[in-house]
Amino acid sequence: MLTAELIAVGTEILLGQIENTHARYLSEELAKLGVSVYFHSVVGDNMDRLTELVKLALTRSQVILITGGLGPTGDDVTRDAVADACGVALQFSAQAYEQHVLPYFHRIGKEPADVNRRQALRIGDAEFLPNPRGTAPGQYVRHEGRHLFLLPGPPLEMRPMFEETVLPRLLNLVGSAVIFSRVLHLYGIGESDVESMLLDLLKTQTNPTIAPLASEGEMVLRLTARATTEDEAKALIAPVEKELMQRLGDYVYGFDGVSLASVVFEALRNRQKRVAFAESCTGGLLSSMLVDLPGSSEVFEGSLISYSDRVKARELGVSEELLRTYGAVSEEVARAMAEGVRTVLHTDYGVSVTGIAGPGGGTVDKPVGLVYVAVAGQEGIRVARKVFPGDRMQVRIRSAKLALYQLLQELTR
Amino acid sequence: MLTAELIAVGTEILLGQIENTHARYLSEELAKLGVSVYFHSVVGDNMDRLTELVKLALTRSQVILITGGLGPTGDDVTRDAVADACGVALQFSAQAYEQHVLPYFHRIGKEPADVNRRQALRIGDAEFLPNPRGTAPGQYVRHEGRHLFLLPGPPLEMRPMFEETVLPRLLNLVGSAVIFSRVLHLYGIGESDVESMLLDLLKTQTNPTIAPLASEGEMVLRLTARATTEDEAKALIAPVEKELMQRLGDYVYGFDGVSLASVVFEALRNRQKRVAFAESCTGGLLSSMLVDLPGSSEVFEGSLISYSDRVKARELGVSEELLRTYGAVSEEVARAMAEGVRTVLHTDYGVSVTGIAGPGGGTVDKPVGLVYVAVAGQEGIRVARKVFPGDRMQVRIRSAKLALYQLLQELTR
Repeated sequence: MLTAELIAVGTEILLGQIENTHARYLSEELAKLGVSVYFHSVVGDNMDRLTELVKLALTRSQVILITGGLGPTGDDVTRDAVADACGVALQFSAQAYEQHVLPYFHRIGKEPADVNRRQALRIGDAEFLPNPRGTAPGQYVRHEGRHLFLLPGPPLEMRPMFEETVLPRLLNLVGSAVIFSRVLHLYGIGESDVESMLLDLLKTQTNPTIAPLASEGEMVLRLTARATTEDEAKALIAPVEKELMQRLGDYVYGFDGVSLASVVFEALRNRQKRVAFAESCTGGLLSSMLVDLPGSSEVFEGSLISYSDRVKARELGVSEELLRTYGAVSEEVARAMAEGVRTVLHTDYGVSVTGIAGPGGGTVDKPVGLVYVAVAGQEGIRVARKVFPGDRMQVRIRSAKLALYQLLQELTR
Repeated sequence: MLTAELIAVGTEILLGQIENTHARYLSEELAKLGVSVYFHSVVGDNMDRLTELVKLALTRSQVILITGGLGPTGDDVTRDAVADACGVALQFSAQAYEQHVLPYFHRIGKEPADVNRRQALRIGDAEFLPNPRGTAPGQYVRHEGRHLFLLPGPPLEMRPMFEETVLPRLLNLVGSAVIFSRVLHLYGIGESDVESMLLDLLKTQTNPTIAPLASEGEMVLRLTARATTEDEAKALIAPVEKELMQRLGDYVYGFDGVSLASVVFEALRNRQKRVAFAESCTGGLLSSMLVDLPGSSEVFEGSLISYSDRVKARELGVSEELLRTYGAVSEEVARAMAEGVRTVLHTDYGVSVTGIAGPGGGTVDKPVGLVYVAVAGQEGIRVARKVFPGDRMQVRIRSAKLALYQLLQELTR
């Protein structure tokens, strides 16, 4: 299996002024090829530090992709550093200048500056990679069994150059390997519980690998297999997925990049049901998760954000006595809100959220993070109570997800 | 000047499944302190490679920030690798377990798993850094003049930990050099217009530096000065800020980390006014921006998310004739929605948003991205029309911001 690493060159990344947007794109592309990326690095426009880093990369990776630092100025040191690290000469190539630098200037109707000649400096016997979208051609350097690709920094130049010139050369190097992933989405179980339930598998499983990932009250399990064909990879994944479903199937709500909102959306659409929300502490976040999805108008009628008790009483018909007796954050009020919004907006389902997002407003009986969710449908009402950890935003996100999950449970029971 | 490097641990980053979002945030924070970041690295959940990388970092940087790999499972190898690289023991600390691991589980009302004991393994005589938002405490390791900070991977845990525990310790290390920033927040002007209006300044200005940054329909201008005292830094900034205000003051809506929502919140609170929203295409996003702020109940009554025409008609009293004649996305309906929600929810201001977020639903007359915002108050109605570029999410974010801005204009006119 080929090993690779990525080096991005640019002081502005180290200063936090711009993001290293190449890393994710190139990593995804290399993963698809079955190339193992072991390191990403970012280094500034600094000759010594870049040279050292390239030397280190040559000791540990077969493929090295370097982005940035191919411009015409003295700040652009990638060519110099790579030549230095490989111990080869850097020489002006008149042919490369004619073929790869001048045409761009002709096209935009400008004269090249003297400094643009730097962009035709060839590293040893490197192959130039054409860049129709800018002044910086790339270079492909082969050195003692290593493969170095030098690519321009601007994404609009780098990505097409990668696809048009690097990808075919890498495919050649890789032969036929493929990588295939299957993703399980879980709700209602934490990272450490998943880990303890899968301890034996996580320790021994290598192909496919199992990678658990936690995010805001959800878990993702990614199975990744390597094989020579996609069918073979799928065959490797199937038995492991089956085992995982036996252990954790109750928590799995979907596969391969879905979200709670998208699964709820599909479930509502398939059943031709419509929903309305009554949101208190989530304040529109729950509705917004559904409205994020194109076509949500097919299943979503609207919502009442009843932030004040007045709105709960007047618009949702929650009785003032209920509010006085139990308080706005209570099972009783959650029920009344869900029924209220279902009635007022004439939908199949009404879902309510009421809770204490914090930082203030908590008491011993009703701590910050306490949330009630109610789902009202034709068959009655389902209520859930949780105390979520985290700050205001985390409590609100987790509350909205709980509401989606409860609705999904009601839809699929 | 202190030198620093960042190491992010996580195979999922190398596979391109997630972005290394920490690098930019931490780089910006370190730049503000005047700490020179020379390298970013990403490495997988692999003991050998991480250990080698930490050893290398110890040879070249004074401050090393490592994010990720602090979870409870065998996959989480950061603690082990750092102990190895520093050549110190890794031992279970009962005190750290009591103080930093158990409280989180108590708060969420769960029992820790056995594996969670790993999270209380102390690297040599490291200091634990509390993490109220998750199970993984951080650690601060001092080793032969180097300073290593181990932080959890999830951004919602990492950032507060950085601000609350790492920043004060770095400030201590940095000593007397002061970095002071002043941030101007602009709305209603694009990045290229700002840059052409400031071309001369951006080219020549070095202390303070001026960094323009665009984000979702807003612009930020950050002035950063270095000096020996804060007063001195402020004195350097003052004349440059004055010059910027002369050129761009009309677009500046606030200073130093505010948001449109927080400025609107303050303006409403100072005037003791209450607002309600009628949201169509934003679907709760606008309300959610206000509810993000603690104390928003002082100024926010509630909202009607009128995603369907039925809700617009029945709940907001928008006449069916208006909807038929002009369509839901029209100045007339925006006006009626704003007046409707102001009347129905009895507030001082009613603000409506109606638009076409896409990707479908656009026509020649009413393209995707078209949005109407209306603000109804005692003194009448203000309407704005825009066509926003971008995808569904971007159109919705920009629409919500336009609504906040229009309300602010009405409040401060």
